[in-house]
This record gives sequence, structure tokens and C-alpha cells, in this order.
Amino acid sequence: MTLTGPVEIVGVGLLGTSVALACRRAGLDVLLTDVSPEHLRTASGLGAGRPRTDDDRPQLVVVAVPPDHLGEAVAEALQRTGAVVTDVGSVKEAPLRVVLAAVETADAARYVGSHPMAGSERSGPLAASSALFDGRPWAVVPHEGSSHEAVALVDELAALCGAATVRLSPADHDRAVARTSHLPHLAAVLVAGRLADAPADHLALSGQGLRDVTRVAGSDPGLWEQIVSANDQAVLGVLGEMREQLDTLIAALVSGERPGLHDVLRRGVAGTLAIPGKHGGPARPMRAVFVAVPDHPGELARLFADVGASEVNIEDIHIDHDPARPVGLVELLVEETRAEHLRASLESRGWVTHR
Amino acid sequence: MTLTGPVEIVGVGLLGTSVALACRRAGLDVLLTDVSPEHLRTASGLGAGRPRTDDDRPQLVVVAVPPDHLGEAVAEALQRTGAVVTDVGSVKEAPLRVVLAAVETADAARYVGSHPMAGSERSGPLAASSALFDGRPWAVVPHEGSSHEAVALVDELAALCGAATVRLSPADHDRAVARTSHLPHLAAVLVAGRLADAPADHLALSGQGLRDVTRVAGSDPGLWEQIVSANDQAVLGVLGEMREQLDTLIAALVSGERPGLHDVLRRGVAGTLAIPGKHGGPARPMRAVFVAVPDHPGELARLFADVGASEVNIEDIHIDHDPARPVGLVELLVEETRAEHLRASLESRGWVTHR
Repeated sequence: MTLTGPVEIVGVGLLGTSVALACRRAGLDVLLTDVSPEHLRTASGLGAGRPRTDDDRPQLVVVAVPPDHLGEAVAEALQRTGAVVTDVGSVKEAPLRVVLAAVETADAARYVGSHPMAGSERSGPLAASSALFDGRPWAVVPHEGSSHEAVALVDELAALCGAATVRLSPADHDRAVARTSHLPHLAAVLVAGRLADAPADHLALSGQGLRDVTRVAGSDPGLWEQIVSANDQAVLGVLGEMREQLDTLIAALVSGERPGLHDVLRRGVAGTLAIPGKHGGPARPMRAVFVAVPDHPGELARLFADVGASEVNIEDIHIDHDPARPVGLVELLVEETRAEHLRASLESRGWVTHR
Repeated sequence: MTLTGPVEIVGVGLLGTSVALACRRAGLDVLLTDVSPEHLRTASGLGAGRPRTDDDRPQLVVVAVPPDHLGEAVAEALQRTGAVVTDVGSVKEAPLRVVLAAVETADAARYVGSHPMAGSERSGPLAASSALFDGRPWAVVPHEGSSHEAVALVDELAALCGAATVRLSPADHDRAVARTSHLPHLAAVLVAGRLADAPADHLALSGQGLRDVTRVAGSDPGLWEQIVSANDQAVLGVLGEMREQLDTLIAALVSGERPGLHDVLRRGVAGTLAIPGKHGGPARPMRAVFVAVPDHPGELARLFADVGASEVNIEDIHIDHDPARPVGLVELLVEETRAEHLRASLESRGWVTHR
């Protein structure tokens, strides 16, 4: 089977509308439904597709509704159409159980769960983009009864969206996101939760480390309540592991036992090294080059022209500047082997740099 | 008393050498000491100052040695010289206890602890910069017996380094960093520690949130063992609070009690909002503008020229690109009220943007 459309999108929030835009970009006919007439109008207006009519016969239905309603919406789509049905939810086992309880085995064969690893801090169709999934991992998660044809069609959808597919079983997927997404989210929430009542002069010492650790804790608590609840068993597993390590840490501090403390810290370093590079490749050693830049838009353009001339690939950038000061610091993250060349090249063009 | 030098730096690692460079920039005579002759040569070679001789009479001594040796080194400097003595360590009560036990009350009056909130991931004199403290918070932490003159001199040092002073008592300082620095560090370590043994196909789902939460966990475990041990009582306090909240979270998940879960998540959101803006001002609402950029150095320079022409101040930048793909995504973080103007300006110059 080849993905030729029409593709129906159920729920035109950030993810649904982004999938719709990617399908439109590929020239497919896209049908839209949403409980909110306003979202439907907005998504149509953005060129994401046209409202579905009763005569439409989709080839593929993509369900993009919140976790609490996911299973029912997938079952409804399987019963209403003869299409292959997928979803883009953050959890896979709980909605699958709802689907298998609600539909015939033959119909369930047309269902293949999926989960693109993209953008959860923004929301709504206005935040959507056909480029949202470009180069991101996209988990394609068949259940035991999924047909090969259905899996192939969902693989095609992920490829059309520019994503890199990762094949996992529903149980493995849920354990994986419990560890790589839900645990870090909840740890960030616990750290941030310890700040709300702290004295202001204590918080004046907040640095970039605190901001990095707690950033995700600012996300929509209503959505995260649904995500964590839907994956409660796997989440309880990793929270239990964290609690055990926290107790080990507390015991080491109480007894003043340095090797135990060092061991916990060393395991953390090993964990950061286990995270693959941005696009699934091995993590390459990076180094930061800092450049002092007069806080003025033209200077940033001049810096990037000079960075371009150095022919060093920039992996990431951070700007740290204070509107009240004339100079800001720009941090350029580059491959370790290229850092000295970049520094020398920028220094020779009159920039003040340090590592 | 005015800071006229000479300033002696004990320990020429990242922080010590950076303070030395800032003092040299201000025209002060700087004297250097370090147990490592190689570090001493490197720091001198960088123009950070000259090795101290027995005839030198410093006005101010800055002790920048690891936490385990801080108290002794401060006491030694108080006994050897008639100078005001400060330090740049991450913890203040434990070394103060060592100092007060080792020296006369009259000598202890010349000691004022301090703690610049800057750079702990890089280390060594080669990573130093006179700009390291620019615009950063710098805690100046007198004890009850510190003289006003000594406090004023340390305030002057922080100002000379371009930092913004925050006055705290030793106990308050240690409680503040336990919450804003040591707790987030240890939480990141616990999350990262759960990754090292995870299957590779689980880690393939790692996203930016996981990278942000765990980044600081990659820091030197030897240094952090010393920092956390030196602040064990305050750290145990916040770890106990986190454990209590973790138990609340686990209980809510076990019982399926949604309001309890929602409450923990909401407290996290409140905490992220309590963190002050980058330079101590109130946090301003920010919005991200995403721009698709051909993955080619010249294109980045062209983008920044066009950003400059839009006259919108860029707060931060992230680049997400894959060497194997022709297009990368650049995320420009700007004040919420300026986002639409920036988008329109860039679109009119031919860039593809989304929010």
C-alpha cells in the first residue's frame, strides 16, 4: 500500500495540524475534524486541509486528541471507516487496551499507534508547522494484531513528515518514555516545586543550571496529568528507582560516606554520556567558544558573517545579555576539534573570545 | 578603604584566574600562588599576574581552592598576611567554622566569604576570562565578626569583576544554594543515573527536555562530592522536602487520585515562574519564532543580518540541524510582544517561519 490519501486528521491542535500541513506539502488531500469549530476554522485557514464530510473515504486516519480521549477516538475511527488508523499520543498501552476492548480483532488490525517526539510546550493549530517533525525521532508502535500493510502506511506517514522512525512494542515504548520523558519531567517539577515559597533573596542566586533543569516543569499541568496517569505503571517503576537512589544519596550524606556519594554522582555522568546525539547518531564531544558582542543587532550579524567565513559548523548558540549593559556574551557550541580554529579565526577578525 | 591592590589569588583554576584577569584589566597588581607549578605558569602566561614573592604585601587575598581545603587556606592567608581575605567557594558555613576555630577573633574580622555564580562546567586557567562574572550575581557573605571595611573591599572586588552583589548571611547563603544549585544538580544526577543501563532503542526517543534536565549532571563528580559534602545539612533539608513530594506523587499515582497529581504539577509551574529573569529582573514573557535555514554557514549570517534589520532584540537562540539534511531549524527567543513583528519582517525577506 502506498500513502495516496485522503488523510483524515482528528483533532487539529499543534501535532494534528502539523501532520496535516506536512501531508498537504506532499500534495495529499487532507480532511479535518475537531470538537472546536474555531480550531477547525483556524487549521483550514492555514491551508492544513478541508473539513471532513460524510462522503469522504480516508485511506489513513491520524487521531491527535488528548490522552484521556485517545482510545475512544481511535475505536470510533476504526468503526466509522475502513481506513488504517494511527495516533500521535505520548502513551501507547492504555489507549490500546481501550481499542482492543471496543472493536473486533479484524478492525484492530488496521490500528498502529505512533508517537512523534516533537514540541509539547506550545499548543494549538497556530503553533503548527509542516517542519515540526523534521529530523525528529518518530516511534511507530504496532500491537501484536497490527497488519503489515497498516504498519507500512504509518512508516510512510512518518517519512513524509521528515521524521526518523523507531520501531518499539507498546510496552517498550511506554517504558522508554517513562524513563526519557516522564521521569525528567516529574523530577523538574519536584525541583521547581521547591522554589515557589523560597525567599526572593535566595532565588537571586538562580543560575543557568536551575533554569535548564526546571524549564520543562512550566508545561501545561492538565496535559501532563493525563500523560502521567495514562502511563502510571511504567512511571511508578522509574519513580521507584529514583526514590531508591535518593535514599542511597540521603544515607551517604547522613553518614558522611564519601564513596557512596561519589558513586551516585559518577552514575549521573555515565547517564549523560548514554544519551545519543541530537539526531540519533553518537554524541560527539563539543566545546563552547564564548564571544563578547556589543549588545546591538548589527553586531550579531557581523559575528555570524565572521563565523560563516571561519567555515566551522555551529551546533548550538546561547546568548546571555543584559539590556542594561553594552556587551553580551554569545556562546557558540562547536565540535571539540574545531574550537581552536574558530577562536583563532574570530580573534583575527577583532573579536574577544574565551573558552 | 579603596581596592588599590596588590590582590593575591590563591589557586589559579577557572575562577581564580578569571578574578585575576578582571583585576589586571582594572590595572591592579596581581600576585599568584598555586600548588601546581604548571597552572601557575599558565596563568602568568595569560597575563593574570606574577608569582607571589615573600616580600609582597597584598591588600586583598582571594582564596579559590576546592571546598575540601578552603577553610585551611583562608586561615593560612589570615595568619600569613594583614590583608582582607575572601574566597569564591560554593559553600560558606563549613569553611567559616574551620576559620573561626583556627584564628584569633581580630584576624577573623578581616575575612568575608563570597561566591560568584559563574561557570562550573569548564575548569582550569585556560578556560578563564575577565568577562566570566559580567552581569552575574555574586553573593557577598560576611560573618558576624566581619569588619565593615573588609565587607566594603569585597563588594568592590565584585563590582570590579562586573558582577551584581547579593548580601546574605552564611546560613542563608548555604540554604539558598542548596535549593537553587545543589538540589537541581542532584535531581539531574538521579534522572541521568536512570539512563546508563537503559536499552539503546529506548534512549533513541531522547528529546531536548531530557538533554536540558540532565546537562549539569555531566559536571566533575569529584568537585561536586566536595560541594555537596560541605553543605550536607542544608542539602539534606531540601532532599528531605523533595522526598516528601516524591512520596506524595507516588501515592497519587498508586491511588489514581488525579487532584493530588495535578497539585504537584501546578506547584512546579509556580516554581518556574518564581525564578527571576536572567539578570535579576522580573521574568518577561518570551515567545519562540522558528526559522527554516539552509544548513550552510552563509545562510546563518544572512538570517542574522535580516534579524538585525527587524530591530527586534533576540534573547536566546537554539539551532537544531542535522548534517545529513539540507535544512535546519533556528529558534529565536524574543519578547512575546515582538514575536509577530519579527515573523512578518523575516517572512517579507523570504524566510519560512513558524511559531
